[in-house]
Amino acid sequence: MTDAYVTLSLAQVHELACEVLTHHGMALPHAEAIARVITQGQRDECQSHGVYRLLVCVRTLRSGKVNPTVLPTVGELASGIVSVDAHYGYSLLGFESGLPRLLEKARANGLAAMVIHNCFHFSALWPEVEAIAAEGLVGLAMTPSHSWVAPAGGHKPVFGTNPLAFAWPRPTGNPFVFDFATSAIARGDIELHARQGKPIPAHWAIDEHGTPTENAQAALKGAMQTFGGYKGSALSAMIELLAGSLIGDLTSAQSQAFDGGAGATPCHGELIIAFDPKAFLGDALETGQQSAEAMFEAITNQGARLPSQRRFEARERSMRDGVRIPADVFADVQKLLD
Amino acid sequence: MTDAYVTLSLAQVHELACEVLTHHGMALPHAEAIARVITQGQRDECQSHGVYRLLVCVRTLRSGKVNPTVLPTVGELASGIVSVDAHYGYSLLGFESGLPRLLEKARANGLAAMVIHNCFHFSALWPEVEAIAAEGLVGLAMTPSHSWVAPAGGHKPVFGTNPLAFAWPRPTGNPFVFDFATSAIARGDIELHARQGKPIPAHWAIDEHGTPTENAQAALKGAMQTFGGYKGSALSAMIELLAGSLIGDLTSAQSQAFDGGAGATPCHGELIIAFDPKAFLGDALETGQQSAEAMFEAITNQGARLPSQRRFEARERSMRDGVRIPADVFADVQKLLD
Repeated sequence: MTDAYVTLSLAQVHELACEVLTHHGMALPHAEAIARVITQGQRDECQSHGVYRLLVCVRTLRSGKVNPTVLPTVGELASGIVSVDAHYGYSLLGFESGLPRLLEKARANGLAAMVIHNCFHFSALWPEVEAIAAEGLVGLAMTPSHSWVAPAGGHKPVFGTNPLAFAWPRPTGNPFVFDFATSAIARGDIELHARQGKPIPAHWAIDEHGTPTENAQAALKGAMQTFGGYKGSALSAMIELLAGSLIGDLTSAQSQAFDGGAGATPCHGELIIAFDPKAFLGDALETGQQSAEAMFEAITNQGARLPSQRRFEARERSMRDGVRIPADVFADVQKLLD
Repeated sequence: MTDAYVTLSLAQVHELACEVLTHHGMALPHAEAIARVITQGQRDECQSHGVYRLLVCVRTLRSGKVNPTVLPTVGELASGIVSVDAHYGYSLLGFESGLPRLLEKARANGLAAMVIHNCFHFSALWPEVEAIAAEGLVGLAMTPSHSWVAPAGGHKPVFGTNPLAFAWPRPTGNPFVFDFATSAIARGDIELHARQGKPIPAHWAIDEHGTPTENAQAALKGAMQTFGGYKGSALSAMIELLAGSLIGDLTSAQSQAFDGGAGATPCHGELIIAFDPKAFLGDALETGQQSAEAMFEAITNQGARLPSQRRFEARERSMRDGVRIPADVFADVQKLLD
């Protein structure tokens, strides 16, 4: 690690990402969809979902697991369900391709679902639910991942880190957004502690024998824990069921088996639900918005933060000043263009 | 408290509940809907949601807040949204009245929502999501309550105990079901500790100054905490938004204000979502069911429990042997017939 940084504009980040990805054989529409999300991650100072992620994408492209050129196809399963088949390409172009139909169906029916099948998934879910909120709708998204997490009361991994993301559009300014893993912590945080030889908090994981451990290496061989005890565990199971079994795609255990030890980005499905406040509220739209704003004020007026508040503050800085990328990460990314 | 019990059959519990409620002026359809849920609670050995609950219902009826005779009206807001107005009666008959339309819409569109407006709500949500699963659909339900719970990082109450319930139909046997409060603990548990003068765990609540407290009285004057830190807090906010603001009904703070210190059962709205696996899975229905069953086995084969497992074991006992009601509770309920 170094303290040196390279400053780029958001347009430069986007251009760099497109260049790297197409250089490694990715079709331009995929490269652009991924570049948009990587630029958003860097903009919001989520370093691990920013330019750094290009290193991971190229590693996955080189593994040959992901189809870098196939385009997603969009169809429908019912009047309320958009279905996108990513054909074992990356998920993001699939999301973008299905989004207009999802919005249309949600506006027609009041709510609608989009399922994305057979996609490699590496990104946070907040860019997707924020894209729904930007259209004035409420978004909810979830995916399984790889089976690294033990159920409450157990000691063997069953669940993925299974993120849940939600966005509520606000009349002005940024939406109310959260995006959290149902595991106690991100897998990457345990890997980082293992690399640095640092101990981890005891509630993050258990060792192979089911005993809570502060040893990050032992944790990686054992199982992570869910957040929030049996409640977090129940929620994680729900995500396996809704974004795995219900949509006819892989659960985290099945996705892990599909990977076959390659250590690639997980391949599975995704479930996104959109609700149209205009359909639910009709003439009372403003009243509903106001009751939400009153709740947000009750939180912030006592000095508590809304979820994503730090991210929005970073966004404001980045839009104004550009983004700072660690010089070593930037150098490694540049090498990908050789 | 006493160790003496009265044993009743499930039919006797139902009859007793109907008799007590109609004796206190409740219209028969409401009394029957509530009696069904109280019988289910007693059957599953949820003592606080069983016959005991009749004492609470009669207290609320006597307060004059609930309309005991008005029948709910069922309509629709969009092709995917059933709307039920309970007209300030109890919620359960509203749920039963709207359920057939919810199922019909979910089967037609793939998923659908039911909103119940202006209802007094005292019951667990698992009987409702189980009723959806009994029809082969996946159910999700949530409600606000009264603002007793502080957001993460805050010290003043904003959220209710905001339960979230989910049911997944299984090809044979009981569904996969959970129903949990997004608060660290049920309000009733803190009240019980306060009555008994017992200390509470420090993560349940904070005092008026925002300091974690083991004093149950101080907790009741302060604020409860959510489960799972900032993630549980985000989830609780989502429930305020979806089952309050989105449906144009009261948030927990508004419901608390509506109560005006009467201490009645909370009046607010409810959101229920149903997903039809047949629409999502089509010919792959069995494959989807099997992947869910494989996940359940991965949990139970390592000795961990599925949520609701204790409740289903109690159910089996009660169906066979009848239910045991504490003699003092039974005596108090009998007095309501005088």
